[in-house]
Parts: sequence; C-alpha cells; structure tokens
Amino acid sequence: MSAPANPIPARLAEGYRGFRHTRFRRERDHYARLAESGQQPNTLMIACVDSRVAPEVVFDADPGEMLVVRNVANLVPPYQPDAGYHGTSAAIEFAVRQLLVRHIVVCGHASCGGINAFRQNSLNGVDAAHGDFVARWMDMIAPATRLALTCDGVDPLQDQTAMERAAIRQSLANLRTFPWLAARERGGELSLHGLWFDVADGSLCVLDEATGGFSPLEDPLGDPLTP
Amino acid sequence: MSAPANPIPARLAEGYRGFRHTRFRRERDHYARLAESGQQPNTLMIACVDSRVAPEVVFDADPGEMLVVRNVANLVPPYQPDAGYHGTSAAIEFAVRQLLVRHIVVCGHASCGGINAFRQNSLNGVDAAHGDFVARWMDMIAPATRLALTCDGVDPLQDQTAMERAAIRQSLANLRTFPWLAARERGGELSLHGLWFDVADGSLCVLDEATGGFSPLEDPLGDPLTP
Amino acid sequence: MSAPANPIPARLAEGYRGFRHTRFRRERDHYARLAESGQQPNTLMIACVDSRVAPEVVFDADPGEMLVVRNVANLVPPYQPDAGYHGTSAAIEFAVRQLLVRHIVVCGHASCGGINAFRQNSLNGVDAAHGDFVARWMDMIAPATRLALTCDGVDPLQDQTAMERAAIRQSLANLRTFPWLAARERGGELSLHGLWFDVADGSLCVLDEATGGFSPLEDPLGDPLTP
Amino acid sequence: MSAPANPIPARLAEGYRGFRHTRFRRERDHYARLAESGQQPNTLMIACVDSRVAPEVVFDADPGEMLVVRNVANLVPPYQPDAGYHGTSAAIEFAVRQLLVRHIVVCGHASCGGINAFRQNSLNGVDAAHGDFVARWMDMIAPATRLALTCDGVDPLQDQTAMERAAIRQSLANLRTFPWLAARERGGELSLHGLWFDVADGSLCVLDEATGGFSPLEDPLGDPLTP
Repeated sequence: MSAPANPIPARLAEGYRGFRHTRFRRERDHYARLAESGQQPNTLMIACVDSRVAPEVVFDADPGEMLVVRNVANLVPPYQPDAGYHGTSAAIEFAVRQLLVRHIVVCGHASCGGINAFRQNSLNGVDAAHGDFVARWMDMIAPATRLALTCDGVDPLQDQTAMERAAIRQSLANLRTFPWLAARERGGELSLHGLWFDVADGSLCVLDEATGGFSPLEDPLGDPLTP
Repeated sequence: MSAPANPIPARLAEGYRGFRHTRFRRERDHYARLAESGQQPNTLMIACVDSRVAPEVVFDADPGEMLVVRNVANLVPPYQPDAGYHGTSAAIEFAVRQLLVRHIVVCGHASCGGINAFRQNSLNGVDAAHGDFVARWMDMIAPATRLALTCDGVDPLQDQTAMERAAIRQSLANLRTFPWLAARERGGELSLHGLWFDVADGSLCVLDEATGGFSPLEDPLGDPLTP
Repeated sequence: MSAPANPIPARLAEGYRGFRHTRFRRERDHYARLAESGQQPNTLMIACVDSRVAPEVVFDADPGEMLVVRNVANLVPPYQPDAGYHGTSAAIEFAVRQLLVRHIVVCGHASCGGINAFRQNSLNGVDAAHGDFVARWMDMIAPATRLALTCDGVDPLQDQTAMERAAIRQSLANLRTFPWLAARERGGELSLHGLWFDVADGSLCVLDEATGGFSPLEDPLGDPLTP
Repeated sequence: MSAPANPIPARLAEGYRGFRHTRFRRERDHYARLAESGQQPNTLMIACVDSRVAPEVVFDADPGEMLVVRNVANLVPPYQPDAGYHGTSAAIEFAVRQLLVRHIVVCGHASCGGINAFRQNSLNGVDAAHGDFVARWMDMIAPATRLALTCDGVDPLQDQTAMERAAIRQSLANLRTFPWLAARERGGELSLHGLWFDVADGSLCVLDEATGGFSPLEDPLGDPLTP
C-alpha cells in the first residue's frame, strides 16, 4: 500500500546539512574507519523515547561508543524466548552476545510519560487492555510497585520519582533473568548500572544497588556563580 | 536478585560533566521550560541501535524536537494488538495518539548488523529459532525480500544495501497497518518518510515512495575543495 | 607592581572543564599533532574584539586552521615600519612572511562600537585626542569616509553600515601598502577578502572589490519553515 | 587600489553554513537580543593570534561573554598615550572605560611562535630592526627576562615555557601602568588574571601573582580511564 511522496521535513534537512558541515566534516576520518572496521561499542544504553533525554547528548557520546535501545519508559521485559517479536530483548542479545559490551546502563528520567500513564491507569482502575499497546507495555512494571514500597517507604503510585526509580531497579532485575547475561556478569565481564536524569536541572543520580537508593553524581564544582 | 554496586563508567561520567558545563549550561532555560510544560515533539524517529547512527547527532536535533525509538535494524512490526509486550508498537501509539506527531521517519543505514544477520541466516539456512531473539526479530523482514526484487531488480539476499532499503519500505507499509495511524495520514495530519544514511561518507538518501527508489538529499554545495 | 592573587572567574573554569571533557577529548590526537608539528594555518582572519563575533564560532573553525588577530573595529593600519610597537602589522607580517598563509580575510560586522564611536566623534566635533587610545585608533578610518561617498552614494557619517563597509574596503587597501604582501598577491600566492557579518540575523555579506559592493553569501536553502 | 574579486575560500563558506544551521539556529534569539541591546561582556581576554588557541573554544564561551583582543604572543605594551596607533591599548581602553569589564585575562600558551622568535633573535644577536614589525613588537618583552630569572631561577632565553610565563607576568605589570585601569583594580571593580594553556595535553595553568608561579587548574577528575 503506497502513499504520495512527502518531502523530508525542512527542519531535518537543515539539521542534517548542519551536521555534514560541522561534526561530520570534523570527524570524517573516524566515521570512515567505523564504516570499514565495524562498531565495537563498549556500552549498551537503555533509554526512553522521550525527546528531552537523548543519551548521546547527555553523555556527549561519540559515534561508535554506545549501542542505544530506546523504548517507552526505558523498560526491560523479563526473559521470554518464545515465538513473538521481542525488540528490546533482541537488542540486548545483539549487544551482549554479539558485540560483547562491557556495560549495560538503564537510564530513566524525571517526568516520564509512560510511568505517569501507568500510575494514572492504576489509580483510576484502567486496565492494561486500554488502547492497543502502551498500557499493556507499561503493565510490565506492576511488580515494581512492591520494590518501591520496600526501598523507599513511599507509595510509588502517589510519587512519580519513586515509581521511575522502582522501574529502573526492576529493569536491572529483569536483565538478570537473561541467563547468558547473568553468566557474563558473574564472570566479571559485564557490569549493570542504573541512572536517573532530571530534565529540569540537568542533575544525574546513580543507583546504588546495595541500598536501592539513588544519589547525585557528585559534581565538585557545584553550580558556579557568575562573578 | 541484587548484585554488587558498580561505579558508573568513567567515560560516561566525563561525558555527562562535559554536557553539564557546555550544552546544558547554554540551554538551561530551554530544558527548564521543557520540564515544566512537557514535550511536544513534531516527529517520531525510528532508528537503529547502531552506535554510529544517533539521530540527534545526524540531524542536530534539540531537546524536545523528536521522539526516538531505536531497535535492531529500525524495524516496524505489523499491527498486532494482542496480549504480548510490543515495545516499538507502544512507542508508535504514544507518539501518534498521545503526542500527535506530524511526521514519522524510518531511518535506516548502511552496514546494518541486523540486516546482515538476516541475509547470512537466509543464505546459510539458519532458521529463526537460532539464538533467542535476534533471528526471530529479523525474520520480520522476510516479506521485504519480495519488495526488493520487485523494485530494484536485485536479489537483496546478495545485496546489503538493497535489503536495508527494502526493509525500510516494508516498515513504512507496516506503519500503515496501524488503523489510527493510517487514518491520520489519510486526513493529512501525518506524513511518513524513509531515509537511509551511509556512515562511510555521511550521505543521506531519501525514499520516493512513488518509485520505491532512494536518491541522495541534494547538497548544492557539493564537497568543497580545500583551497 | 604586584597585586593579591584572584581566583580565575568561575565561568571560565567551568567553560574550560566543559572544553576538556568534550571537544578536547574528542580532538586530543589532533591537538597533540598540532603541538608537535606546529601550526600551518591557511588563513589570516582580521576580526573585531566584539564579544558577539568570534571567527572560530561563525566559521566553525578547527584548531590549526586560521590565525586570528582581533582589534577594535577589525582595522588594518597603513604600512609604517618605524620604531613603534605595531601589533596588527606584526601579526600580518607573521602570517604572510613566516606562515605563508594563502588568504587574508577582513571580517567586519554590524553594530560595531568602534565605528559608531568614530561617527559620533566626527559628528560632534570630538577630536582624536579624546580619551587615550580609542579615538586616535579609530581616526585611522577618516579616509574611508571618502571611499563610502564614492561607492555607496551615502554619507557614511550618517549610516553605520556604510561606514563599517567603507572601513573594510580601506583595510584591504591598507593591506596592499605592505610591499611583501602586495607582491605575494600579484604572484597569485595570496588572496584578500572582505566580509561583513550581521549579528541580528546571522547573515554574511561578501565584498566584491570590482564594484565595492557587499552582497549576501547565497544560502540556497533560504530560511526553512518549521512544518 | 583595487584587485580582482576572489570568491570566499570554500572552507569558510562551508563552516559558516554549518554555523547557520546549528549554533546560530539554536541561539538565534540570543543573537537577536545581543544585536538589539548591545554587548555587556564581563571579561576582556588578551590572547595570541595562534590558530591552536582560540579563547571561545578553550573556554566554551557564548556570544556576548568576552571581549577578545588577539595579537602576536598575547602581549600588553606599556601605557604610552602618544600620537601613534595603539591597537591593543585601544582595546583595553574600550573594555575597561566603556564596557566596564570586571576581569582581564592574559592567556598565554605553549610553543608560542612569537616568544620563540624573541629567544632565537636574542641568542643569535639579531636586533629588533630585523624584518619590519615582529622583532620590534617582541622586543617589548626584553624586561621580562629579568622577571623570569628572579622567579624561576631559569634562564628564560634557554627555556620556552619560562619565557612564555615571564611575558605573561610582564603583561600584567604593563596593564597596571594604565592609570584608569590600576584605579579600578584598587577600587575592587576589576581583577587581573594570568593563564597558560598547553596545546599538547590541554592543561591550563593559573598564575599566582603572590609567588609568580603557575600551577595547573585542578581537575578533580584527573584523566578518566576507559573501562
């Protein structure tokens, strides 16, 4: 089923030209090498589709450094090798078993629409069959409500941040249901990390899995005053 | 199931600090507004997990401009609203029905590992049950081989670029199997686009759906010579 | 005569750290090579001290590409090899006779404070002895008023842009009073250029020395509309 | 005296287009405000013409933040309000008396060609009349050799870094020969700073005027290891 051709949005064309004349020009040799020798990223980043939280921007990543899977609410489903299409799981398999990444980072963020949708649905009694896909996808984090109650003493259905963080912890737990992933972690070849980024003030918090708590990545400079 | 805490990889910490002191500092007000008023991206970008093809970099996108879903080989599965977890479909639903994006761009690229895996498996008779998820995920594009034969006259199993481009065309067709998406497109509220990015030389080709062919986004400057 | 130590302004420390973690990290090898083999810039840029018109930003220049001299109103004094200290002339000599640049660009701009000061002083009858240095320095462009009248038919003392452009033309003429510079130009080894940048809308105009007029550097894309 | 028109070098045209489509697009409102309300930079930066040490790059400066004068070897001549053209002095007057900057930074660097020329000339007995301007300009730092011997115990004519740093200290001393500048410093409205940037490793050293010594701007992160 075809449709009439549409010109590429002008904003994309402009941004692409800007990229060609600045970053690509500057890094041309690096791109050429990457094309020839293939990618060997060190890290798999699991992030949200949110337009405000692009991993390459927040971490100033260069081409070739990180494999990035992005879905609604940066979730990792539990290991389920059946006949269905499992996009996030396929990305994890590709990263861990083929590219042999050394790190997996689950990067959540503040004001996550998917997490908010889950909370609203739960509070309003809307079930997972609502709509076609989002509610069912977000229902994956129902077990995380119990994780939040345990660690934070906060009812996550009432607290957006607590729910976002509980979901990150659950995603790490779900990563470990992948047997070949857990094996590499036990063997010291793979490390898992949880992060939470606050769009409003640009702060980044790191999960300490021993306690289940998140604390800010220390910036010794604090916020410099304009003299 | 917990694991010992791991410090965030030094490279990520460094990149984040760089971001805080440069881009975030410069765009602080913009981030604050986005946090407060929410995101209103104009475009949904469907791209690959590949570490060399970050949409925000290639299109010099600003925070708030594009929702980005990334999976292996930038695929769109056919509409299948069952009880399973469908991450890409959930992202599409979120973008189209909630955020009301005006454009969806399927952005493929050269040297795609997922596409290459599909071709190798097909040529070597490896079935979709190989491994846990990747082969099954990539099997989604089996119908695309017929699309390629029709349009290009090339056997896509022998030609990486032809297969990448056929998969882009199929993804656009699969987008149109989502009834509420097709309805918005018919109503003139949504446009679909296919792009293919060549990592080696930074060129970008645009799909003309009328012909099924891809042609370079014209750069009137050509490649300037260094005087 | 010493003074108590002052900490480097916080804003500079922050910006430097940002640079270290982003651009310098990315271009480290290039900086190392430049340190070892020395600089071989292709171009000498003569620009204003103005905080809004940094050549490396406006032309997205990389380290090693352009030698940059910046003074009030991007002026070039006439050739005067006496016993005085002549900073701009020394920079020109260094660029042309030692580094053998192929291009010299005089880059003026809109709303230039130095040019405005000259016009105000002329209109108000303030002589060049006013203050210590600025009025005397700007008095260098008095001959340019006649150039403006010839080319534009406008009284430059009434028209900021006309005066800015006349001063650019005069600076090019003054460059040619340097005998070894004029010789290289005649020999085809050196080209001179005049540019005028409008801070307000980011446009760039190029001098056509044959006519004395400035016209916009053509941007075939025009200003893209947001779809 | 005119010359045939020359097209702007392709590399500059490309860089300008890149700037228009990326940074200018992103900061358009800021540039418009700066054009309308004028500049109010906080800092005057005195830097070298060297193509490897652009202050806006090293300090990630935004438009409007710093006035920048650049000459050979980032020198400040002694106060000499005679009838000659004094470009650097005019820039200092403009910055201090008109724009009321709060900070002046003399930013030197490693492998400075001007400093090296001075040392070679001194060692080889070439007098300041050699060439037209550079040798005479650099002769300004002859008194600095005595400063170096006092502070570092090193013969600066034998040591490039010692000479570069001695010249920075002398430039600060020369700044204080400007009476209206010294008055503002005594009144607490102006601070002076000396910096030295090493192109090879990107390090930045800060002058402690109390001791005359330079020490690295502390980076608490050190050099992060790639995991």
